[in-house]
Amino acid sequence: MNSIPELNPTWFQRAADYQARLTMPTGALGRLLELGRQLCAVQETLQPRTEPAAVLVMAADHGVSEEGVSAYPTEVTGQMTANFLRGGAAINVLAKRQGARVLVVDMGVQQPISPQAFAGQVEWVADLAVARGTHNFVKSPAMTMEQAEQALAAGRRIVAERLAPAGMRVLALGDMGIGNTTSASALTTALTGQPVAAVTGRGTGIDDAGWKRKVALIEKALERHFSQRGNRIEPMEALRAVGGFEIAGLAGAALEAAGRRMIVVLDGFISSVAGLIAVRMAPAARGYMIAAHRSVEAGHTAILQTLDLNPLFDLGLRLGEGTGAALALNLIHSAADIMRDMGTFEKAGVSGRGK
Amino acid sequence: MNSIPELNPTWFQRAADYQARLTMPTGALGRLLELGRQLCAVQETLQPRTEPAAVLVMAADHGVSEEGVSAYPTEVTGQMTANFLRGGAAINVLAKRQGARVLVVDMGVQQPISPQAFAGQVEWVADLAVARGTHNFVKSPAMTMEQAEQALAAGRRIVAERLAPAGMRVLALGDMGIGNTTSASALTTALTGQPVAAVTGRGTGIDDAGWKRKVALIEKALERHFSQRGNRIEPMEALRAVGGFEIAGLAGAALEAAGRRMIVVLDGFISSVAGLIAVRMAPAARGYMIAAHRSVEAGHTAILQTLDLNPLFDLGLRLGEGTGAALALNLIHSAADIMRDMGTFEKAGVSGRGK
Repeated sequence: MNSIPELNPTWFQRAADYQARLTMPTGALGRLLELGRQLCAVQETLQPRTEPAAVLVMAADHGVSEEGVSAYPTEVTGQMTANFLRGGAAINVLAKRQGARVLVVDMGVQQPISPQAFAGQVEWVADLAVARGTHNFVKSPAMTMEQAEQALAAGRRIVAERLAPAGMRVLALGDMGIGNTTSASALTTALTGQPVAAVTGRGTGIDDAGWKRKVALIEKALERHFSQRGNRIEPMEALRAVGGFEIAGLAGAALEAAGRRMIVVLDGFISSVAGLIAVRMAPAARGYMIAAHRSVEAGHTAILQTLDLNPLFDLGLRLGEGTGAALALNLIHSAADIMRDMGTFEKAGVSGRGK
Repeated sequence: MNSIPELNPTWFQRAADYQARLTMPTGALGRLLELGRQLCAVQETLQPRTEPAAVLVMAADHGVSEEGVSAYPTEVTGQMTANFLRGGAAINVLAKRQGARVLVVDMGVQQPISPQAFAGQVEWVADLAVARGTHNFVKSPAMTMEQAEQALAAGRRIVAERLAPAGMRVLALGDMGIGNTTSASALTTALTGQPVAAVTGRGTGIDDAGWKRKVALIEKALERHFSQRGNRIEPMEALRAVGGFEIAGLAGAALEAAGRRMIVVLDGFISSVAGLIAVRMAPAARGYMIAAHRSVEAGHTAILQTLDLNPLFDLGLRLGEGTGAALALNLIHSAADIMRDMGTFEKAGVSGRGK
């Protein structure tokens, strides 16, 4: 594994010193300045650049969806993936506004995807799928350890071979997978020890009875896989037992991106679980991460607390696809612009504080 | 006064019905969809457009600043206004990222502004200044009723003569004025009846002693101007006694913009006080308003509650200039993009909910 450089605290201080010279009361842009300092530390410059940026959407199916844990049928994973390729999904629309590239990766979608027309901004990676969906983790492990490693490596390859050569500076993570909030909730309990009911939400919109069944299934699965092992499970082991190929792939992508000093933008519950897996494997990755938003999914808050990341906004989003992360790109670009393009008190001839 | 059309509730319902057909679980984009419905109702279409957008920054001085209520000297109002014109301020940088025009208006700056070089995106209106700053409202009314009316009319003219003819669809409000949080806090107590200490913050960054003096001065002024009149003061009367030319101008701009079915984006404390003044004069204006963010200034929350507006984000901003409103433009544009450009379940061949 590439080593991920720890951020140098000197750069946070240099950035703060420089920000104090910009023509505004000290600290008056709040979290935008906090973002700016992080960008400076990641890139080791006072003139950070955040373009080009890409949204990496990884799609895979989940065997557990045969238990009826989602409001939507399994084939929607493939249908929505095809929709991404045609440019008709929310992530296409939002990424276009940000001028961000969209890379869609089949990490293990059950139904074959045959896109007929591609939206200009979208690229498609079809040859990294690990299998046509995971196993139903209520009945057996979701995947083998080899598959978990293969999915993680695929995420790394995407960044190393597709995004790094294009000079990508910011990577927004997105997901598609019917049933994947069930996997994410199981992973959250496995990784944090929090009770299943506290980290399980309604995903695409199940009702009360569906939610109770979802919680019961996850509890049953965790008992089956981890009863002998105590609360905090190793990340690869958690992925093997109850994970998803897209979640493992996103964790690999986050690790590789941080190792190359890219900013990693977490979207909602699924990509943040992937972020936590990456940080458990390499704690220095945390410094490269930005939490875009707080999702409606109950487990997301538990993950953000564990990562000690404070999201930029709370807009009641619960879509995934990288939509919240795409919206956050604008704030990230703005934070970089402020560092690069604002004038200083000296240059502008503006008086400083009177007292 | 132009009448402001009440929004037609039918358009909210039509927009919601259409949103339910877009390829995502119902409501999964949360507040972005709420924004989208508002845009549809304002423009009476399911295909709202939010470009072009402009940031209107109104600058004026405040006589009360001679009391030492700000951390910065009075001349900073003029210096920062010149900085806007040269393109070196935060609002220039943030508006540029959004592709928004910046219109800077001298509503009554004390020191003459002689810009030497203009940033390409900025336009300058120098001929509407009401006077070279208000009077110190601790000692006398801030302005005459004629001046309050003149400032309000100037705000209307800017929109009618400069922005409407250019087809502007969204108007973000911004302010510059050393001492203007003192005026805004006094206006907030006058308009809402909330205690001065609860709606007074630290502005550009005064210390504890400065804050206590600021509160005491505002209390003294309000007692002087309004002791006989009870809690809720008429907006023009409040402006006359403790207002500012830029605040009156922004209120006029908000009224004129709403009357022309433009979206009005409130920034922080100052522009939101202007928004409340507009709504007190014409309640239908409220439907056209979006609160960008929750400022650090204590009084802002009181104003937003009175307006019943829920801000889009809370980033610890306290700069003014329209900076938060400019950042919100991206979310507003994104909300419009979602309405116009996403595919529907039928068109995309994506299955609906299974149950």
